[in-house]
Amino acid sequence: MPKSASSARMCLAETIAIGSELLIGGRTDSNSVFIAEALATIGVEVRFKSIVGDDEVGIGDVLNIARQRAGVVIMTGGLGPTVDDRTREAVAAVTGFRLARRKEAFEGMTARLAQWGRVPNRGQLRQALIPANAIVLPNPVGSAPGFALTWKGTYVAALPGVPSEMRAMMEKTVIPLIVDRLKQSTYARPHPITRVIFQTWGLSEADVDTKLQGVISKQEPIALGLLASPNGVLVSLTTSAHHAIKPQVLTARIEEVRRQLAEWIVAEGHDSMEDVVGRLLVEQQRTIAVAESCTGGLISHRLTQVPGASAYVDRGAVCYSNRAKTDMLGVSVSLIEQYGAVSREVAHAMATGMRERAGVSVALSITGIAGPGGATETKPVGLVYIGLDGGAGETITKEFRFHGDRSVIKQRSSQAALDLLRRWLLERRQA
Amino acid sequence: MPKSASSARMCLAETIAIGSELLIGGRTDSNSVFIAEALATIGVEVRFKSIVGDDEVGIGDVLNIARQRAGVVIMTGGLGPTVDDRTREAVAAVTGFRLARRKEAFEGMTARLAQWGRVPNRGQLRQALIPANAIVLPNPVGSAPGFALTWKGTYVAALPGVPSEMRAMMEKTVIPLIVDRLKQSTYARPHPITRVIFQTWGLSEADVDTKLQGVISKQEPIALGLLASPNGVLVSLTTSAHHAIKPQVLTARIEEVRRQLAEWIVAEGHDSMEDVVGRLLVEQQRTIAVAESCTGGLISHRLTQVPGASAYVDRGAVCYSNRAKTDMLGVSVSLIEQYGAVSREVAHAMATGMRERAGVSVALSITGIAGPGGATETKPVGLVYIGLDGGAGETITKEFRFHGDRSVIKQRSSQAALDLLRRWLLERRQA
Repeated sequence: MPKSASSARMCLAETIAIGSELLIGGRTDSNSVFIAEALATIGVEVRFKSIVGDDEVGIGDVLNIARQRAGVVIMTGGLGPTVDDRTREAVAAVTGFRLARRKEAFEGMTARLAQWGRVPNRGQLRQALIPANAIVLPNPVGSAPGFALTWKGTYVAALPGVPSEMRAMMEKTVIPLIVDRLKQSTYARPHPITRVIFQTWGLSEADVDTKLQGVISKQEPIALGLLASPNGVLVSLTTSAHHAIKPQVLTARIEEVRRQLAEWIVAEGHDSMEDVVGRLLVEQQRTIAVAESCTGGLISHRLTQVPGASAYVDRGAVCYSNRAKTDMLGVSVSLIEQYGAVSREVAHAMATGMRERAGVSVALSITGIAGPGGATETKPVGLVYIGLDGGAGETITKEFRFHGDRSVIKQRSSQAALDLLRRWLLERRQA
Repeated sequence: MPKSASSARMCLAETIAIGSELLIGGRTDSNSVFIAEALATIGVEVRFKSIVGDDEVGIGDVLNIARQRAGVVIMTGGLGPTVDDRTREAVAAVTGFRLARRKEAFEGMTARLAQWGRVPNRGQLRQALIPANAIVLPNPVGSAPGFALTWKGTYVAALPGVPSEMRAMMEKTVIPLIVDRLKQSTYARPHPITRVIFQTWGLSEADVDTKLQGVISKQEPIALGLLASPNGVLVSLTTSAHHAIKPQVLTARIEEVRRQLAEWIVAEGHDSMEDVVGRLLVEQQRTIAVAESCTGGLISHRLTQVPGASAYVDRGAVCYSNRAKTDMLGVSVSLIEQYGAVSREVAHAMATGMRERAGVSVALSITGIAGPGGATETKPVGLVYIGLDGGAGETITKEFRFHGDRSVIKQRSSQAALDLLRRWLLERRQA
């Protein structure tokens, strides 16, 4: 085999997710994204993903195709105790490595079950059956052991489908094993893939595209990716495992993206909008309260997803009825009658009423029409007003028009409100 | 080709999702679950799914493998206007059908853009390039046309990756075309796959397994599926495209599952807990208000995801601080001091305070420790109290202990609270 081809193949990976419920059951495979990111950090690129049901022949066929294309194959699922779990048998059949009960697999599993006060049942005993020639991969979280083997030059690992177990085993065992394998090889080492993610809000995909025109030249081994979602456009820069890039060039490109997208960048990496807002609130020792109508509690829910949010979230009011706006926030009946519940004036009154009642540093408010009902001739579905009261007469109100179904309008509205808060907090920091 | 093999192959399908962001970008493919469900209703079973990047050779390779296994291949994505969109070229290259600009594709696209006040740019003109021998599939939602062709006996459709466009094209064009194809065939028609889904709450996977022991005999062509999630265990019965089942047998099995799982069944089909609770509230003309602490607004958010929720949701209070519990719900300071904010007594006072203040028929309350911080020696992370006040002295409080991270504990807590409400409403209906 020519040196370059084999070296390239060692750095190509595939994932195989196993489980009939992934084909039709409404469960989507989230494991493979984690695996792709973990492998990228060591210069191994996932090129194909496959999903197959609990079908021994089908699993074997997919594995056989994958090992012809890739040097690394990570399988997830099908290692449980029930008769539907066919990964062990499928790998044994297609590789010709017979299954045998392995002491280390059996002992690891029984020790784990004993911790939970249980003894293995007949199904669980099947979980200690591992193909000959494979090494047993201990499961530090659950009872199902995994295994890894080399078949016709391809490294194949089989891991449980439970995300927490899969993750722990990838990090503790599989990644170090692949790194060793790459080190032992006489071929050129792959380049670790660097992936930098910018989460933006407030720009369309076309706007981002225009702003980033010419930032990355076609000759550079950096892939620019744009991905639109209800939470904004995700921008990624990804380096290649096959071509080196000077660190200072990558740094310069990252800086240029930062400069072009400026304050539209909400977060870098895997942080969420609520993580960023939470950090700013902690840093500035401010407390917050939220008054929501059309988002129905989503903004409070998002703020309180962050561990430690109780340090800055004081309260939220979901004022769906007009009476609730009056009772909970002191919005006057006449104001609602004059301007309508969905108006700049009511958004302003909601924020001010909430800030005063809660005694917090800053209050956020939102009122709008999430649809599909509720529109009038002058107020369409998607019309949203967002208010902020930061005390000392500092108030902001903004009008937005969002498109999409009820759920998308709620999501975009919550993102716009949190972004208004983020920008306000950033200005306070700079002041 | 033997008759049975070809007939079987016509009823086997594969999906191919195209897009580099699906490999590593944090976006998961949700289109293929929709496609699998739509095909199942006409007796066509999805056996494999593949995901491939924006890579012309890779797309061609995957399509070539898929057409050897399946009679129907549905591709999604890669039909956009940018140079990254390679599906057209990949299909042309692997099938040998050259690309040509097609009048119907061009006209459909320009008409759609004209509605939006735009003219096609150079990239969009590429979208009218369609492989020879393919029929153009009109896009009733967006501008990108799709196409379908028969290649070596396999029906191949290429659809946009945008879910709303893909769905409309599947329903309006692709499914009817496949039905026609199956009708014209001289082979035995497949059996439509029936899939019945039960969403349960309150039972573990092992409990469900025990209750359903022996309900489906091994000889019957019905697959029983169990899938655990933070919202409970999903139970499915799926018939086979290859074996007939008498309708009365299926009905009897469905009835037996209903009898065994009884009130633990929250919903059948794709309804959510909040859909079910919403319908019961409308039917009984009741209004609701929610007082949340540890769930931070999630219960209100879920209730208001349902179109028309403004008919019954009056308000919600997210009382994160103790002062908010006192201010917003009238929970007495001394009660909180005596029992702690996370206690049965405070849950009771929150529900009662909310019902009285909002003047609604029923109020739901929740207080607990979502973690990772906040636990004490006697009150662990995951300890949750849920209260309900239905007026006229009708109150319930319940203690729960949930496991998982902050997000999972919030989700399970919201599900438990909505289930308490669901059961209470069901009892009122029967009364």
